[in-house]
Amino acid sequence: MSEIAKTPEPPYYAVIFTSHRTEGDNGYGEIAERMVKLASQQPGFLGVESARESVGITVSYWSDLESIKLWKQNTEHVMAQKQGREIWYREFKIRICKVESDYGFSKKK
Amino acid sequence: MSEIAKTPEPPYYAVIFTSHRTEGDNGYGEIAERMVKLASQQPGFLGVESARESVGITVSYWSDLESIKLWKQNTEHVMAQKQGREIWYREFKIRICKVESDYGFSKKK
Repeated sequence: MSEIAKTPEPPYYAVIFTSHRTEGDNGYGEIAERMVKLASQQPGFLGVESARESVGITVSYWSDLESIKLWKQNTEHVMAQKQGREIWYREFKIRICKVESDYGFSKKK
Repeated sequence: MSEIAKTPEPPYYAVIFTSHRTEGDNGYGEIAERMVKLASQQPGFLGVESARESVGITVSYWSDLESIKLWKQNTEHVMAQKQGREIWYREFKIRICKVESDYGFSKKK
């Protein structure tokens, strides 16, 4: 599902969301997919990367802090956040970061 | 293996390493484990989080940019980087970020 996000030249912003899930799906999969789709429609959204093993890491990229704030306040997202705390997550940490530089490598060329 | 990193109050730095592996292990597992151990012994290292599904995401946390630079130049790490480009990775992106704020949630309390 997840690819390496195609982000523009820095500076831009990253939200690192690291979590431990509770047991069972409890409707998580469907809502998680919906949130990725909804986030990608927001102003300032640049991309998202996601992987889960014992810990889950989702990094979303944004053009500016205001876009991150608006996404956090999105009504449907607020409802999902509430379910996250009540049902889906045992523990999480969210870090808001300014991406100051980046570089990459690809064998595809 | 990976837990949510216990980082101090911001500001601090994050290095987001997103990658696609090539096929096969080719000695990757052992060296990856060694690099996490070696990184954790470096000055300024604060923690690391890691998960891989279709994409791999490893986020390491550091007190300052100088520590990140010194770790990048570490002799054993430079050798691993070379093998990474030649053997283990099909594609990767590294983003150097300043963590400006964070918050968390835990049901453990």
